[in-house]
Amino acid sequence: MLTLNPSLTPSPQDSSLLTDLYQLTMSACYAGEGIAEKRASFELFVRSLPDNFGYLIAMGLTQGLNYLENLRFSSEQIDYLKNTGIFDHVSPQFWSLLENQGFAGDVWAVPEGTPIFANEPFLRVEAPLWQAQIVETYLLNTINYQTLIATRAARMRDMAGENPILLEFGTRRAFSPQGAMWAARAALAAGFDATSNVLAAKELNQQPRGTMAHALVMAFTALSGSEDEAFTAFNRYFPSATLLIDTYDTLAAAERLAKKIEAGEAEVKGVRLDSGDLGDLSKKVRSLLPHVKIVASGDIDEWELQRLRKENASIDGYGVGTRLVTGKPVNGVYKLVEIDNIPTMKESSHKMTYPGRKQIFRRYDNGIIKSDRLALANEAIESGETALLKLVMKEGKTIKENESLETIAQRVQTSVKSLPEETHNITKPTAVKVNVSQPLEQLRQSLIH
Amino acid sequence: MLTLNPSLTPSPQDSSLLTDLYQLTMSACYAGEGIAEKRASFELFVRSLPDNFGYLIAMGLTQGLNYLENLRFSSEQIDYLKNTGIFDHVSPQFWSLLENQGFAGDVWAVPEGTPIFANEPFLRVEAPLWQAQIVETYLLNTINYQTLIATRAARMRDMAGENPILLEFGTRRAFSPQGAMWAARAALAAGFDATSNVLAAKELNQQPRGTMAHALVMAFTALSGSEDEAFTAFNRYFPSATLLIDTYDTLAAAERLAKKIEAGEAEVKGVRLDSGDLGDLSKKVRSLLPHVKIVASGDIDEWELQRLRKENASIDGYGVGTRLVTGKPVNGVYKLVEIDNIPTMKESSHKMTYPGRKQIFRRYDNGIIKSDRLALANEAIESGETALLKLVMKEGKTIKENESLETIAQRVQTSVKSLPEETHNITKPTAVKVNVSQPLEQLRQSLIH
Repeated sequence: MLTLNPSLTPSPQDSSLLTDLYQLTMSACYAGEGIAEKRASFELFVRSLPDNFGYLIAMGLTQGLNYLENLRFSSEQIDYLKNTGIFDHVSPQFWSLLENQGFAGDVWAVPEGTPIFANEPFLRVEAPLWQAQIVETYLLNTINYQTLIATRAARMRDMAGENPILLEFGTRRAFSPQGAMWAARAALAAGFDATSNVLAAKELNQQPRGTMAHALVMAFTALSGSEDEAFTAFNRYFPSATLLIDTYDTLAAAERLAKKIEAGEAEVKGVRLDSGDLGDLSKKVRSLLPHVKIVASGDIDEWELQRLRKENASIDGYGVGTRLVTGKPVNGVYKLVEIDNIPTMKESSHKMTYPGRKQIFRRYDNGIIKSDRLALANEAIESGETALLKLVMKEGKTIKENESLETIAQRVQTSVKSLPEETHNITKPTAVKVNVSQPLEQLRQSLIH
Repeated sequence: MLTLNPSLTPSPQDSSLLTDLYQLTMSACYAGEGIAEKRASFELFVRSLPDNFGYLIAMGLTQGLNYLENLRFSSEQIDYLKNTGIFDHVSPQFWSLLENQGFAGDVWAVPEGTPIFANEPFLRVEAPLWQAQIVETYLLNTINYQTLIATRAARMRDMAGENPILLEFGTRRAFSPQGAMWAARAALAAGFDATSNVLAAKELNQQPRGTMAHALVMAFTALSGSEDEAFTAFNRYFPSATLLIDTYDTLAAAERLAKKIEAGEAEVKGVRLDSGDLGDLSKKVRSLLPHVKIVASGDIDEWELQRLRKENASIDGYGVGTRLVTGKPVNGVYKLVEIDNIPTMKESSHKMTYPGRKQIFRRYDNGIIKSDRLALANEAIESGETALLKLVMKEGKTIKENESLETIAQRVQTSVKSLPEETHNITKPTAVKVNVSQPLEQLRQSLIH
């Protein structure tokens, strides 16, 4: 079936329909019953941290706020909905809401780059019920994915240490082109130095970075009979290039380069290793090419970075792809916590939620997070506490400029340093203790059916 | 940092830059050395199947061909590249290629929906070297992700059996909005009945489907004091709705609905269970509501579908999200196999590839795949064999209309039925044997350095 948009790219104007059908059917029901404009609060949080995660780094708010600010239903979209036949029995009030309203609510959120734990809200939406309802899907999409990538990037930076260059090479394995763009953003905001994705770099005002691929080596070898000719040719146009030396025999290639450097016939700035035992090979290559930067790639993740660091691998930079941009997700959920000033909660088996509008009060000890207090939003802050959720959107308007990636990256760095030692662990970490305040616990007890 | 496109949506016109930097630097090197227009062939394949996968269902070609057909570098994009400073030493021939050429090559590919195994090419690009090089990143992105989703969808359909409705509910957990769109497409093309993603349904000319969420139940309970009021209200506008009955107590809700039905006070078409022991609960709900469709959701995957079917769960449909649209990737690679009529191969440790332009010759026995022969493209087809790779693009033009999702879905159904019994297994399956032809093996041996 031909479509006008075969790449299935959801343009910003399309994004009002980028939602689950039930958000719209439920909104139609709210409209028909006259409750669509009751003030509702929803909070976005995870019930538990992913396996082996001691913390999450909140990310994706920028895209969420941009979505909210621009949310509109065009007449073409409304016609499409009418023509599905699904809405044949709804009342006209529903169409009038879609025609006349965008998103006019308030949003409270933790800043991008903030460490966060299970049951703590990343954000709270306070808006007319139907508006708060339909934005669930998109908000979860952006926060879930970018938080995953930011957290993994932060863990990788933490395990790699401050010095190695970390390069985001995941585009070919990312889950769609936009997935690649968002991964690049979140990685750059959480400890990576650069991305190879040219479009992402362009849009994010960053310089793209890359090395070279096997194809070039293979092409020159076939056409000129020599791997060295590939290196010479590439260096001719990119004098500071990182040469990929593992296409045939890594150490043989390094030895030949070393001889050329010694003979003054070549200047080599960097080499890349993409196969074999990276720790061992890097040391051997270092001894052959002492002044050349060594970049390693191939199934790099936080565990591999930890292992290579422990064995003193001689590696100056890493290209990280697949294991950064794919994998098990962050399972954020978005739950109604209050409607018309009445606190609500879900009681489903193993899925109970905390009712009411909440705030996270964080306490530090010498710059290290000591404990969090999950409390009702109207509880008083105590001496020494910091309130994490801030008002970021008022009546549908973002109330401050977007932060630069550099500002967020700086926050992530501070955030990771603020974690207790056992929370840094990438295997069986201990998360920070989240204490539930007495008023919140009492409210929860009082609401159990 | 503010960007013009805060949602980081890669528009179709942007996609020429949706590539890794090194594709462009290597192309600049090819241009400078006068080899950019040598005819090159690259093949896209996986070195091994993902863990516990006995087969892959090829998917994503439509988006790949669309990308190739529309590939152009605008003067604004070329200016951006020039202004990075990265290309300061390249020859003017490179800019002239970008200005004047799109993609003018040929593509051979297996049709979407074809089962495929390790080392077998999904597609081959034959084009001027630089063109074939720069398209690697996007082609891998679309084939890797959509093949993952299609394969998982096919496995889920296979384990669920023919009857249950399978609904794609993954948008909130998908890796970006476009990731959600592509997941919906691949799932619908590989055994799913519908998606809840309204935009995806619209773009794919499908009817969106959905149920209802806890928020509606919680809102009505808070405002009117009754879960039943939520059901009544929703049914008022959506008479054939599926009601979500697990917000407080699944069986209590089902019992109350049963009484209302018996008293003629309600007509209920469907209910959804989203927590608890789905097999056990479904049977209990069935005994209370014998004529109501039961939909189950919550961490559904192919193993859960298999388990629920084995225990005769009374479930008419499943909502599947997280475990369909996220997870470990398909690790397709794209390798130069021939340049200027010279076959090439990579010899890196554990990453050796097969040289030359290849064809897959498949043999069936009573409709079941018996074996594949991976051969050079110029080898003769043998009696009883089918050649899988077809010419789908000639000189940059797609040579047939896009197939409908229904056509592809029909092919997937036939494909899965054609798999040997042991290949269907979702745990420790046995893939179909891929025999390497003697000429191909001889060529490989002759090229080892």
